[in-house]
Amino acid sequence: MRAADVMEEYPLIAVTEPALEAARRLAGHRLPGLVVVDGDGLPVAVLAASVVVGFVVPTYVQDDPSLARVYDETTADACGATLAGRTVQDLLPPPRQRGETAVVSGTATVMECAAVMVRLRSSLVVVVDEHRVRGVITASRLLGLLLPPAS
Amino acid sequence: MRAADVMEEYPLIAVTEPALEAARRLAGHRLPGLVVVDGDGLPVAVLAASVVVGFVVPTYVQDDPSLARVYDETTADACGATLAGRTVQDLLPPPRQRGETAVVSGTATVMECAAVMVRLRSSLVVVVDEHRVRGVITASRLLGLLLPPAS
Repeated sequence: MRAADVMEEYPLIAVTEPALEAARRLAGHRLPGLVVVDGDGLPVAVLAASVVVGFVVPTYVQDDPSLARVYDETTADACGATLAGRTVQDLLPPPRQRGETAVVSGTATVMECAAVMVRLRSSLVVVVDEHRVRGVITASRLLGLLLPPAS
Repeated sequence: MRAADVMEEYPLIAVTEPALEAARRLAGHRLPGLVVVDGDGLPVAVLAASVVVGFVVPTYVQDDPSLARVYDETTADACGATLAGRTVQDLLPPPRQRGETAVVSGTATVMECAAVMVRLRSSLVVVVDEHRVRGVITASRLLGLLLPPAS
């Protein structure tokens, strides 16, 4: 069983797309993250939904969480404002702090995928062949493939 | 809009349950994580599927990833073996290294939930009332609630 046989489709987003589009896609598909690709279609990072939440919470609320409660009624407009004008690139840490993206080829074995996931402490591995993202494999999918059948 | 209005059900697992059961539940429901509760039903941690993968990959493969490829055919039994005899507790870091679990009450506002998520760098917040876990709120759910409607 190889990566190409078990990978799943997963939404991609380009670094140049609007940050608000990334947030909407995460919310709309109820995804824990998006694979971010560069202009060549190669993966540069996995953008976690929780990281995007960090851009939606105003700085002064992060500094003083007691302000969060009084913020309830008017959140939506202000939250959109913090993402407006930014791109997906702006939501990522600088390249040097970003860490290596967990990438495997379609011929990688399931155990190779797991080993890469563990080494890079990633929640998914991205399958890349011929310089294009072909799919992803999540941690729960790998567990299902690696565990012995229930007896 | 309060946490109790927007939370979702999420599988729980007790610290005393077998590690293999946690792995099977993650795989079966395709979950990114499980909420781990103690004997009193209070949340002690969120167990990420990717962390469990770390226990499934044999140490010698982690040390020498080139061994992963030759491991393909016989993975299942060996992987089960690494989890057998362990409990969920054994999959968690020691309490002092575990970090605070992101917990809110059912009356927390959406922005309070987001602020707690950001502060604790968590992928979800656990809603607890009257000493029991009532549900969770994921990052993507929070984004959907915090973003302004698409115009």
